[in-house]
Amino acid sequence: MKPMPTLAAVTRLLALGALLICGARAQAATDPLPSWNDGPAKQAIVAFVNETTDQTSAKFVPPAERIATFDQDGTLWVSHPIYSQVMYCLDQVPKLVEKKPHLKNVEPFKTVLSGDREAIARLPMKELEEILAATLTGMSTDAFQAEVKAWIAKARDPRWHRPFTDLTYQPMQEVLHYLRDNGYKTFIVTGGGQDFVRVYSNTVYGIPPEQVVGTAGVTKYEYDQDGTPFLIKEPKLLLNDNNAGKPEGIHLMIGRRPHAAFGNSTGDRQMLEYTKAGDGARLAMLVLHDDAEREYAYGPAHGLPDTKVGAFPQALYDEAQKSGWSVISMKNDWKRIFAFE
Amino acid sequence: MKPMPTLAAVTRLLALGALLICGARAQAATDPLPSWNDGPAKQAIVAFVNETTDQTSAKFVPPAERIATFDQDGTLWVSHPIYSQVMYCLDQVPKLVEKKPHLKNVEPFKTVLSGDREAIARLPMKELEEILAATLTGMSTDAFQAEVKAWIAKARDPRWHRPFTDLTYQPMQEVLHYLRDNGYKTFIVTGGGQDFVRVYSNTVYGIPPEQVVGTAGVTKYEYDQDGTPFLIKEPKLLLNDNNAGKPEGIHLMIGRRPHAAFGNSTGDRQMLEYTKAGDGARLAMLVLHDDAEREYAYGPAHGLPDTKVGAFPQALYDEAQKSGWSVISMKNDWKRIFAFE
Repeated sequence: MKPMPTLAAVTRLLALGALLICGARAQAATDPLPSWNDGPAKQAIVAFVNETTDQTSAKFVPPAERIATFDQDGTLWVSHPIYSQVMYCLDQVPKLVEKKPHLKNVEPFKTVLSGDREAIARLPMKELEEILAATLTGMSTDAFQAEVKAWIAKARDPRWHRPFTDLTYQPMQEVLHYLRDNGYKTFIVTGGGQDFVRVYSNTVYGIPPEQVVGTAGVTKYEYDQDGTPFLIKEPKLLLNDNNAGKPEGIHLMIGRRPHAAFGNSTGDRQMLEYTKAGDGARLAMLVLHDDAEREYAYGPAHGLPDTKVGAFPQALYDEAQKSGWSVISMKNDWKRIFAFE
Repeated sequence: MKPMPTLAAVTRLLALGALLICGARAQAATDPLPSWNDGPAKQAIVAFVNETTDQTSAKFVPPAERIATFDQDGTLWVSHPIYSQVMYCLDQVPKLVEKKPHLKNVEPFKTVLSGDREAIARLPMKELEEILAATLTGMSTDAFQAEVKAWIAKARDPRWHRPFTDLTYQPMQEVLHYLRDNGYKTFIVTGGGQDFVRVYSNTVYGIPPEQVVGTAGVTKYEYDQDGTPFLIKEPKLLLNDNNAGKPEGIHLMIGRRPHAAFGNSTGDRQMLEYTKAGDGARLAMLVLHDDAEREYAYGPAHGLPDTKVGAFPQALYDEAQKSGWSVISMKNDWKRIFAFE
């Protein structure tokens, strides 16, 4: 018969277990941001989390107040050479013309159907908006969701030939997780379509639909012939979630001022300003795309090439310096860009 | 020296502890809704929770999809003889006239200043809306929040002479907790002002501001003379969260169809319809105020007195019967109404 272990032996075993568990935790805590190089950007994030979650710190933020907002295009995932949602809209044009054949010879649909990429890229904003309105409205919210879901599963980007959902920045995914692990509720605040981003936000970012604020149109409650109600997407703008529309959208949808905000372009300026204008610890960060080799390089801040897609002008860079916002250099601050690397 | 306890003794102690813990849990599980009488309404709630959280049930709802929406006035708290928010607006009139003395002799402000309750109650809707616009807009969102917070702390209702925040229905508080304990995310979807309800929603209902959908106005991002940004409340409606506005607001702010919805009046009809039109298990419930003694009695369904504040017409009652919505009789289904009873 084996001798019965004593309480002392059990206690030793428990202590050993605790040691193993704590050891594992300590190791995980060593670097919550492994894809970041050590530098001022990473340090700013870690310092912010440490001081806002330390109960003894004057900058402690109660868990219920921990709100962090993230722009999407160019901040959480690739937005060049063209926004994914615009790709979606262009891809919908053939189907649209099938339903409405009279559009076949009407501009700008004719140009899109031609497949001439350079001509498409030259379309003026007004004509592009016409394509967006024609492909993003006029259907039920359920039909739109199904359409986007199907597209996002099969569409590939033109450079890496991967699903767009693979093109999220690994360092930013780590920031999302790090903030959530520290009690922050993470929100997307995007100039892109709210209904579009909500389709994949949970899968891609772990952010549920109700935590996605975006450009939103009016919907109208109607009934089909069986009396079943549905919501139809109307071609009428309700919230333009860009520039001043970002803090306005944050107030509408979240109702609280963020403690941390991340963006990459001039459309995020007011969101960062609004965030920083709150008292206590506030973190404001901008991703600068200065890595043509691993991703793209555009500004025109810092002498980088100018762009029409998510511009980061010198004035924004200067405001960042003046206002204590951190600029994240993709080239210097990020050890790797994508999870698939 | 005391003898060292053996492993067997430790095991017995642990088993005893487990028994105590499980016993306590079993008891708590006995009745998650102690303020409800046994009846079809209570049974409908319990059956819904059981079947949507049981993984082996065909009606199982994954945790991420568990969305429940609640109207506020007349569903979660007392709304008679007049909505609390209207009381707030009337109470603000003297302060408003101090700032804008020319309003002193202008209707409807003159009548409100007279304090003549009957005359105030007779004000036509158009004049009431004028008071609402004058007292709910034109200030910063921060100033408005502070004003509501101060008012809600000191205001008393005219019947029980208690803070309005005491006048929440204990049975509905139990439903909120019961659903949350079972993985449901609870939202308020109110015809009342979103900015108003968000001030106290977390304290009173455990529902954070971002989970309050309500009637909302446009805000505008501006700067004060020091260059500090703020949001000003504009007298322009963005979302009328009543009737068809409820499913439209749910889509805008939540982006998913609820699995359970609770209301009490004709303004909630479309929210319940929209909820029930989803597949799988869907719960739709209406509170009928048929208890003049303990609260108020109004319909005009069921021969109850008619009202302008949260009417429950016979047509709504008939739709409830036809569509499988449950009607909660305050008189018969609720053992007690308020926590302070």
